[in-house]
Amino acid sequence: MKCLAQATAIALLWTVTATTADEGMWMPGQTAEVGAAMRADGLQIDPAQLRRLDADPLNAIVSLGGCSASFVSPQGLVATNHHCVFGSIQYNSREGQDYLTNGFLAKSLGEELPAAPGSRIYVIEDMRDVTAGMLKGVSDKLNGFARNERLDTNRKALIAACEKQPNRRCDVGAYYGGASYYLQQKLEIQDVRLVYAPALGIGNFGGETDNWTWPRHTGDFGFYRAYVARDGSSRHYARDNVPYRPKSWLRIAPEGVQEGDFVMVAGFPATTNRLRTAGEVRFNFAHFEPLLQHLLSDYAAQIKQATAGNRDAQIRYAAILQGVENYEKKLAGDLAGADAIGLTARKANEEKAYRDWVADDSARQARYGAAIRELDAMVAENSRASLEGLRQALLGRAQILSSARTLYRWAKEHEKPDEDRESGFQDRNRNKTVDQLTQIERRYLPDIDRKLFEAALDVYRRLDAKDRNTAFETALDQIGLDRLYADTKLADTATRLGWLGKPATAFEASDDPFIKLAVALYPGDIAAEGVKKDRAGRTQAARATYVQGLRAYRQAIGRPVYPDANGSLRITWGKVTGRTRDGQIWTPFTTAEGLLAKHTGKGEFDAPDAAVAAIRAKDYGPYVAPALGTLPVDFMSTVDITNGNSGSATLNGRGEFVGLAFDGTLEGVISDWAPDADRNRSIHVDSRFMLWTMDKIDGAGRLLKEMGVRPASRS
Amino acid sequence: MKCLAQATAIALLWTVTATTADEGMWMPGQTAEVGAAMRADGLQIDPAQLRRLDADPLNAIVSLGGCSASFVSPQGLVATNHHCVFGSIQYNSREGQDYLTNGFLAKSLGEELPAAPGSRIYVIEDMRDVTAGMLKGVSDKLNGFARNERLDTNRKALIAACEKQPNRRCDVGAYYGGASYYLQQKLEIQDVRLVYAPALGIGNFGGETDNWTWPRHTGDFGFYRAYVARDGSSRHYARDNVPYRPKSWLRIAPEGVQEGDFVMVAGFPATTNRLRTAGEVRFNFAHFEPLLQHLLSDYAAQIKQATAGNRDAQIRYAAILQGVENYEKKLAGDLAGADAIGLTARKANEEKAYRDWVADDSARQARYGAAIRELDAMVAENSRASLEGLRQALLGRAQILSSARTLYRWAKEHEKPDEDRESGFQDRNRNKTVDQLTQIERRYLPDIDRKLFEAALDVYRRLDAKDRNTAFETALDQIGLDRLYADTKLADTATRLGWLGKPATAFEASDDPFIKLAVALYPGDIAAEGVKKDRAGRTQAARATYVQGLRAYRQAIGRPVYPDANGSLRITWGKVTGRTRDGQIWTPFTTAEGLLAKHTGKGEFDAPDAAVAAIRAKDYGPYVAPALGTLPVDFMSTVDITNGNSGSATLNGRGEFVGLAFDGTLEGVISDWAPDADRNRSIHVDSRFMLWTMDKIDGAGRLLKEMGVRPASRS
Repeated sequence: MKCLAQATAIALLWTVTATTADEGMWMPGQTAEVGAAMRADGLQIDPAQLRRLDADPLNAIVSLGGCSASFVSPQGLVATNHHCVFGSIQYNSREGQDYLTNGFLAKSLGEELPAAPGSRIYVIEDMRDVTAGMLKGVSDKLNGFARNERLDTNRKALIAACEKQPNRRCDVGAYYGGASYYLQQKLEIQDVRLVYAPALGIGNFGGETDNWTWPRHTGDFGFYRAYVARDGSSRHYARDNVPYRPKSWLRIAPEGVQEGDFVMVAGFPATTNRLRTAGEVRFNFAHFEPLLQHLLSDYAAQIKQATAGNRDAQIRYAAILQGVENYEKKLAGDLAGADAIGLTARKANEEKAYRDWVADDSARQARYGAAIRELDAMVAENSRASLEGLRQALLGRAQILSSARTLYRWAKEHEKPDEDRESGFQDRNRNKTVDQLTQIERRYLPDIDRKLFEAALDVYRRLDAKDRNTAFETALDQIGLDRLYADTKLADTATRLGWLGKPATAFEASDDPFIKLAVALYPGDIAAEGVKKDRAGRTQAARATYVQGLRAYRQAIGRPVYPDANGSLRITWGKVTGRTRDGQIWTPFTTAEGLLAKHTGKGEFDAPDAAVAAIRAKDYGPYVAPALGTLPVDFMSTVDITNGNSGSATLNGRGEFVGLAFDGTLEGVISDWAPDADRNRSIHVDSRFMLWTMDKIDGAGRLLKEMGVRPASRS
Repeated sequence: MKCLAQATAIALLWTVTATTADEGMWMPGQTAEVGAAMRADGLQIDPAQLRRLDADPLNAIVSLGGCSASFVSPQGLVATNHHCVFGSIQYNSREGQDYLTNGFLAKSLGEELPAAPGSRIYVIEDMRDVTAGMLKGVSDKLNGFARNERLDTNRKALIAACEKQPNRRCDVGAYYGGASYYLQQKLEIQDVRLVYAPALGIGNFGGETDNWTWPRHTGDFGFYRAYVARDGSSRHYARDNVPYRPKSWLRIAPEGVQEGDFVMVAGFPATTNRLRTAGEVRFNFAHFEPLLQHLLSDYAAQIKQATAGNRDAQIRYAAILQGVENYEKKLAGDLAGADAIGLTARKANEEKAYRDWVADDSARQARYGAAIRELDAMVAENSRASLEGLRQALLGRAQILSSARTLYRWAKEHEKPDEDRESGFQDRNRNKTVDQLTQIERRYLPDIDRKLFEAALDVYRRLDAKDRNTAFETALDQIGLDRLYADTKLADTATRLGWLGKPATAFEASDDPFIKLAVALYPGDIAAEGVKKDRAGRTQAARATYVQGLRAYRQAIGRPVYPDANGSLRITWGKVTGRTRDGQIWTPFTTAEGLLAKHTGKGEFDAPDAAVAAIRAKDYGPYVAPALGTLPVDFMSTVDITNGNSGSATLNGRGEFVGLAFDGTLEGVISDWAPDADRNRSIHVDSRFMLWTMDKIDGAGRLLKEMGVRPASRS
């Protein structure tokens, strides 16, 4: 399930035809284009309502930064996935108070607990076209580097202007390969509290074993609440803050969904690559992802080997290892999926049709021809660089070295006024930087780091001389690995954080061996970054025109185009349905009886006693799905989602809450590159399972009433 | 698919009741007990026929040693799995003659190729009770060691007497925990030739990805032929040998099978553990398999790490790595399956019922009580030893060291007359020993071996002093790892083989460092072996009586008992059926269209062009399954099989050939410990897919005619 919050790619759709738009992650404004198709598929509300960020249902959709979520009560109650509130449950657990295993339920507002540091709820207030502002001063006369710098300066200025309003976070994203830019203005709720999470044996039932698979029986849900000052303004946690009162909240559909029903999802998908050129796709699947998978596979083996027989080390490196293995699994799914759908050939055919259309007309040639050729050239150039970049990036596995580089860069950037600093090193990024520098303390052991660094150096040293950093290698040879790890003081968190804000001269005078390495690396890093920015600027120029042409072509054949996912609010729709393959049928619902059949009382399949007893007694109250004759747990649909959509409210045709999206299947990850109606399914926890758990198992009647649901139990 | 030939455990069955025998790997003679149940389930021939080794169909069932197979023509044509003839295809392939990828078809008898060295076909001639001969001189007065030695001496004498007949191999196996012993007498066919194997893209379609899973589309079949001298006697390969004429051969059922049909399998299942005590089961799943899995997981990581970035090393260690990963996957399936079916509790309940039955009656107490207590004590003693044994066995990962130990042991044993030598070191074992000593040349690199040995030593050195070998450690410290690998000559195959048969004194005078280590290890090895044999003798004594009591108890409740699998001929039956779980249905057949859907033209999913074209054209001839309306590929059934059953003929109720068993699913491996009707399914390649491939794709009309099938093509 982590996949939707992290590195995965779920997506899915139904057959693409030239006349109807029935795939896609649509911007709210685009419902004007696809509203008729949505109505035809079962949307019952006016599609125009989906263009309004200030009205139900979109006004109820919020971002947690990495996860999606939604208001489900007038008092700021927020529903999302269990894995999206996981860190906050963990943060509040301690010896003898194991909320992670047992779940947590605040019996009253007063018992609601501060979420993990850094937790935020973002309410989308506005999404406006800032293309003109972004392109101010951007001309074809600029070289790639200057173009990139200009775009960056414009972006920072737009964000700074927007963030002058108190308690707002703003972001400017590129859409259609940089042909358009939109600014999302978000109210930043800083007092987030943990309200309720079921036991781990519900919220993460099936664990890694079931991750990315169907049939699934995970109750992947949990609740936060947004708190603000008494005057309604956002502020940090304070005892006397009060629940935020959202303009809109989702109503719970009493009858749930059944097979064939229309469903839609609104959330924040992070990344897709559907508008990439055929050349980029070919390179990605022939070279980039195979190399990356190979490097990750080696890395996983190195971690396991380095930590073998050492329980403390295994625990410290568990999160890194899990991330590496999860990503590698995703890449394996990508590569298998690309083969299975014949992606390279499919993209080549699609692109040929577009290019033929351009070539057919001299006006189109004049408009798009040069950009297409330029983009091809840039793709070749970028491709070469990206493989070396993967290998160079291995140095980043030395955690203290990475910290030292960040700290020194921070110092160098702070020699400039805030608005001139590199993105990521401005004052607005300080909190996140502190978090990153801090978390190493739970994930680092010098002996293990050294082994991993040595393995990374083995690969690095096999790079061509031009792709290596001589100053770094000389410095490293002088220091030696023994002294590097023995003499550094940066492994201590307070010392490490103490360097944040020190002047660059202090770094340059330091004899800490990792700081010496960071200082040695710096000039080369900056030079390499310059080359990269130059490529980025030239790529943006070519790609923006290329995608404009592609949109014009698609318009000509009656196919609306949505931009690739970039973390901004999107709407997708589909229907509740299973999947049939030769020899195997996935039926679209799982049930409580299936959960019981998987329950072993151990490990990842350990449902709470109360849930087991209630299922055995078939104590389902009003939450039975009539067509199934029992309590549903999860369901599948064809909605088109990907990582970042975790926690997204799933809505019926009336815009009512029927569940939460939380995962997809490994067969579907290829949809990040190309939607495939046959392969892709999304997995949702059924609202009836949520309500049953709250009502019959955990006694969360207080929350049910707040959500407008009348509990069946007297808890 | 390798799983049925190697380390897996597939099994499967249907509900166990007190009144009918509907699970089991039955000895041919036991069909007297279960014949009525077989008839009730759909057997159409007289069950008495299944007791006859000299008549159809059992007379047509042969062993390949590790795989099962069957005669399917009067000219000694043998059908088995592709993965069972894999080594012979590989052996006959070379640059420019890639039979492995493209398949191989002999157009005439003269083109049939010698199979890989060591290939044998064993025709079962007799299976006789030798309990009396085995227990001659075995009395309760003997201590464990002496009892074990006596059993071993008796076994060797029985085998030697049997093997006095020319060209016979004989084995004596323990049945019912050593309560009974049977001798299998086998005609050893020494001239085995490769006749036909489809392309890898048929025979191993889906490869490791699909291994142990359903839906499956593997055409896992191939053909050998048995050759003998003109006078009909067995002899080694000679140009003028002629096809062997078996007494019986299987007829191909023209109509194949359909859902719900009765099917039975006769073959040579290698190992099950169903008659183990509850204590053994608890220990196995709480301690033994988790530790083994952990050690294997570390080993796999070590191999990957040691060979990273070194293609030659990766190729050399691929077979070892695959074996390790396959076994680890099987253990994971075992552990998950044990949890899923609540195995420990189930076994505890079953055993309590048996023990209560014993306790209820003083005569039964007198007969079985002491043995039950003694076995419990032995299980505790064996358990402790087996965990240390796993860690001690890690030294075996140093391949040259293992060879040196084998060679020195060979020398020591050859100081005695053949009949007194340890089993495995007699003259009859020489060929196999040469094979083992030789194969290292394809799987060894000193740098890698050293890294793996170092990792093994890390674990070994953490053992208690009493579990380590001081002489070995002292010798190793004196030599040092650098010299160990630099100075040994044993890495050279000719040198290594040259030591086979040299006197022990030559070893003791050698300065080859690995031989020095082997000599140092020897006294400790022999002492440890003595302790182990003493435990084995005591365990056998207690277990034989324990299982006798268990059989008496089962008889009392109307449940016939079959012995655990031990590599001898067994019969099992079941029906063709899918499997339904919550959210998922497996339908019992896969089809050619499903194969095409998986076909990517790359890697493990690369069907031959001719097959792809024929499927696209739906050119299925007479091989369509009427109920499916298309060509079936594989089917599932509930027959009860495990590793060793690979290649087993699958027969219909009339004893006709309908396919070949080749795999099971990971959910079912737990059946090695406890059959579970709900979880377990076996996977068979459908005879119609075999015939279609031979007829439409590969033009094997010659073989079809020989099998009594009229080809639809004019090939």
